[in-house]
Parts: sequence; C-alpha cells; structure tokens
Amino acid sequence: VSVTVTVAVDAGGADLGPAEVAAGAGMAAAAGVRVLLFGDAARIGEPPPGVEVIHAPLSIAKEADPARAARAHREASVVRAARAVAEGEAAAFVSGGSTGAALAAGLFEVKRLPGVHRPALAITVPVPGNPVTMLDVGANTEVRPAHLVQFAFLGAGLARTVMGIARPRVALLSNGEEPERGTPLVQAAHAEIAERAAGQDAFEWVGNVEGTGLVAGAADVVVTDGFTGNVALKVMEGVSQVLLGAVREAATSSARGKAGGLLLRPALRGVRDELDPEAYGGAYLLGLRRLGVVPHGRFGREGWAQAILLAARGATGDLVGRTHAALEAAGALRSAPSGEASSVSPS
Amino acid sequence: VSVTVTVAVDAGGADLGPAEVAAGAGMAAAAGVRVLLFGDAARIGEPPPGVEVIHAPLSIAKEADPARAARAHREASVVRAARAVAEGEAAAFVSGGSTGAALAAGLFEVKRLPGVHRPALAITVPVPGNPVTMLDVGANTEVRPAHLVQFAFLGAGLARTVMGIARPRVALLSNGEEPERGTPLVQAAHAEIAERAAGQDAFEWVGNVEGTGLVAGAADVVVTDGFTGNVALKVMEGVSQVLLGAVREAATSSARGKAGGLLLRPALRGVRDELDPEAYGGAYLLGLRRLGVVPHGRFGREGWAQAILLAARGATGDLVGRTHAALEAAGALRSAPSGEASSVSPS
Repeated sequence: VSVTVTVAVDAGGADLGPAEVAAGAGMAAAAGVRVLLFGDAARIGEPPPGVEVIHAPLSIAKEADPARAARAHREASVVRAARAVAEGEAAAFVSGGSTGAALAAGLFEVKRLPGVHRPALAITVPVPGNPVTMLDVGANTEVRPAHLVQFAFLGAGLARTVMGIARPRVALLSNGEEPERGTPLVQAAHAEIAERAAGQDAFEWVGNVEGTGLVAGAADVVVTDGFTGNVALKVMEGVSQVLLGAVREAATSSARGKAGGLLLRPALRGVRDELDPEAYGGAYLLGLRRLGVVPHGRFGREGWAQAILLAARGATGDLVGRTHAALEAAGALRSAPSGEASSVSPS
Repeated sequence: VSVTVTVAVDAGGADLGPAEVAAGAGMAAAAGVRVLLFGDAARIGEPPPGVEVIHAPLSIAKEADPARAARAHREASVVRAARAVAEGEAAAFVSGGSTGAALAAGLFEVKRLPGVHRPALAITVPVPGNPVTMLDVGANTEVRPAHLVQFAFLGAGLARTVMGIARPRVALLSNGEEPERGTPLVQAAHAEIAERAAGQDAFEWVGNVEGTGLVAGAADVVVTDGFTGNVALKVMEGVSQVLLGAVREAATSSARGKAGGLLLRPALRGVRDELDPEAYGGAYLLGLRRLGVVPHGRFGREGWAQAILLAARGATGDLVGRTHAALEAAGALRSAPSGEASSVSPS
C-alpha cells in the first residue's frame, strides 16, 4: 500500500526564482509526492499537476539576520512552509537559499525534538565508491561536546534509515587520528562519544578521521561542528569542480586529447553526475519534531525535485522517529528537555 | 654570482627510512644545494656527492609528546638539524614525519622571530589554474585573532618572495563571505585584519572566502587556524586522489573507455603531476629566525629533493627577512617581543 506523502516547499529562496521551484515540484509530483508550494503566486504562474500553490509573497532568504526576520514575519514563505508541517498539513518542509532562515523557521514553528540540544544539517556526499554522511555542515557555527555526541546518533539514524546501513561506522573529524589530537572541543567530544558508543548498537565507533579519511571511506558518518563541516563540504565541492574542469580541459587541448575525450565522455559523465550536488538534493535538517531539507539556493528544477524527493523519503522512512529512538536508547537525550525553541539562537 | 646554500636535513622521520632521504638529498645536491644530513649513518650508508652525513641515530618522530621529546633529547636528529641552522652551519632545516617535533625543535633551537606570536605552517597547493597558499595547516590547533593577523603578513611575504606576486590577495577562510560570518575567532580576526590591511601595500585584503573560493582562485593566500587548515588541506588531497582514481577507473572500464584513456593519458598525467604533493615539497615553517620546511613523512626521494630545494629557494630569497620586514612595516609585530621560546607550547 503506497501512501501519498505531502511536502511543504518554500519557493522564496531560489536563485532562479519561484517558477523554477514550481517546475521541480512538478517533477516530484509526477513521482508521486503531493506538494504544497509557498511563494508568490503571480511569479509561480499556473502550477503543475499535483502542486498546490499557497500565495506567500514575502521572502526572507536575503535578510542579514534570518532568525530575527523569521520571528518578525510569520507570513514569510519559509515560516509558512514550516508551520504547515507543524500543523500536520505536510510531513516535511523544504527551503533553500538561506540555511539561517530555514533553521529559524524550523525552530520557531516545528520546534526541537524533546531532549535534543541543537538541530544539525546532515548531507550525504556521493564520493565515488565512498558515500559519506557529514554533519553538521552549517547549522551551528559553535557547538559543545554534548552536541557532537547527539550528532553521532542523529547521523547514525540517518545512515541506517536512508542509506540502509545496519550499523554505520561513525567517526569524528580531526587533524589527526590519535584520540588526543584536535581542539579541546574535539578532544572532549572524542571522549564523550567513545563513552556513549560502548555497549550500544546504533553505530560502530571508529574514532577520529582526518580530511583524507573523510573522503576515502574511513567512516559512513563523520561528525563535526558546523564551521569545519561547512568548510570541508565546500572544499569537496570546489575541488571536484576544478578537477573535472581540468580533465575536460585536457580532453580538448589537443587533437589526440579530443579524440580521447570523446571516447571517454560517457564514463566521465558518470563520474560528474555522481558528484553533482543537484543529484543528491541537499541536506537534511535533523533534530526537529518534523523533517526539514535544505537544498542549495542555486539549484535548478532537477535539484529542487531531488530535494523534495529526499524529504519524502525521509518522512516515509520515519527518519525523525528513528533518530529520536536511537538517541533515547543510548541515553543521549538531555535530561531536562526544553520545549522553548526561542532559547536557541541559530547561527 | 651563484652562492651555494646549505640545508640541514633530518633523516629521522621518513616512513621509507633514512636511505630514501639520502637519495633525495643527493638529487638536491646535484641541483646545487649543499646538504647536511642528520641521521643513523649505518642506515644511510654511503652518502651521495654533495651530502655530508652527521651521525644522529636518535629519532623522535614517533614520540607521542614531541615537544617534551625535543626538550629532553638534544641529540635527536631533528633537534641537531635545527641547531645546525641556529648556529649558522646551514641556512634552513628540513624535517618530515612529525610536525610537532619539527615545530618544537625549531622553537627551542632556532627560536621565534622577535615580535612573532606563533610560527605557522604555510603550504602552496598547486590547484590547476589557481595555486593558493594556505596557512596555518597544522602548527597551531588553537589561535587568537592576533595570530591570524600575523599569518596574513607571513603568507603575503611568502607569496611575494616565492610566488613572485607583487601584491598578493589575502583572504580569511570562513563559512560565508559576509564579514559577520564565522566563529567569534574568525569574526574578530576579520575585523583586525581589515584594520591592519588599510593603508599598507604588503597585500590586498579580499575578506572572507568559503571552501569553494579557496580552490577557485578567490585569493592567493588564505589564512586559517591550524585545525581548519589541516582538515581543508587533507580534504583537498583526498578528493584529488579519489577523483583521479575514478577517472582512471572510467578509462579502463570498457574497450571504448580504454582507447580514450590511452589517448588522454599524457594530458591526464599533467593534471595528476600538477596535484602531486611530492612535486611541491611540503610546507614552510614561518615565524622562526631561520626557515624550516616540513614535507610529508611518506614522501619518496623526489618529494625529499623538492623539500630541500624549497628550503634552498626560501633561504636564497630571504623569505624570513622579507616576512619580518612586512610585519614590522605594518606594525603587526607584538609590542613586547619575547625571546622565550619555551613559553610557547606547540600543539
């Protein structure tokens, strides 16, 4: 029995405009997802089949202080998309273009999972041969060791639910593999995760990995703060672009290279497609009572369609419930849960 | 008039053993550098022409606490190589395998430049089309804003002296381009560098860059703490290896791909050689009274030869004097210079 999942989508943050998001929503709808699309109805135009447009012309994606903007503008498209999820009209929300706005709207409307310190952005990067899930990649510029402990369980729940890995290998990103390497934060987190990891079966603890290990398959899930994770993710994207460009260049710089490039093109296209950020749809926002997905603001319709499908898959697989259960089973929820989302200021 | 430069080399930290370092030293000697090689004479064997072996069988490269080991073992090969530089027998030292040991030996024997807070490891990564110098890549896991200000001038002096860039573009690595993005450390460093950059001509200040900008030519010099820099550098190396491996795989997976791969091979070899860490010899250790170079411990003889040539080029170009002059001209030296290297504990 297939149940239709509804995803609430903010059309306000896309670099290419709301109509591009609507086109992506139409592709996701064609794949069986029901979409509520929040944005400027005039700019969206006639919606594709399976997409319902809710007129929400105010976008806060470009605001300098998105947390304040989300609080001040309850009619903003991202806030309305998050509220639709909080009120049960949709199972997950999708908002790209401003991580800060998506996080703030999620915190204010959907609220944190009881016992979770901080939501985190988790992305599965399809490194050829070694897909790796990294979190946090930008929701929290500063964290405490207890936050990183929770990220380990959130990431393990994601790898199990979405990647189908029964007992994911979880590591901590550092500047050396030895447990004593890293900043005081990383050293303390290492000790706390090691302690929590003992005697639980949510994940296998592999200790520290370096940047090389991150992309070489040393772990299925790599935990880090949102500053380091954001830098690492963007270096990965940047190096991929530059290298594939250099290979393309090599394949057009001489008659010999051109002939080789033509013959190799189908195989190289496979490598490029595998690495294309649009192909994997963006990052999960984990740690809220319902699921969020944050795609790149620069995505085209294919990227938006993938982001909506990512949200639908996570909701169907009960990603939120499973990650919460894993945290609870390990005793990694904080003892005095606070429902006050407003006490957390997203960075 | 060509003056022969003498470089003191520690043969103790190489994964492939002292004989491999000796072979690299011989290659550098053939290119005109005089080498003093500190290591186990029995394992080195007959030295190549131009290489003088000084028997120093004790290696501290594998010590868990290299700072303590460097202090306790004044006869260790890395300490003796650094001391040869301090005593004027050589113009620069080279030690690979343990950054901590090289840093500690440099601090204890060579000592910090007057007014410099912390030495930094600076590496020029030959990203195709966009070579970029990044520092710190591992000498200081934790830094203060004033340290990052000095790194900006040290890096600019390096880019000017070794890369020949008259007015290098200097940036700060962050998780967003806006000045208010980043950790409190990065925010404070941004403000301090911006202030120091005004009205000086050592470099052009371009503000924050993200991980994508780091590899896309947004700046000639990118400043960061040793933790983030180490992660970023190793992600760059890791992604390069994985991607070039995937391209190689694509070029052998079918008859068609194989034919294309054969035709493309010379051009692809160019890309690979350009990215090969051995080809660029390692990182400069800047901020001491004399120059240090830290290659990968896993380098083969070509890598060691390049590291020795890198040291010779830096010494010939008076890299230390130029970076110190740039710091002084900008008023970025600390007001009460301390000669007490022992007050700094390398991380």
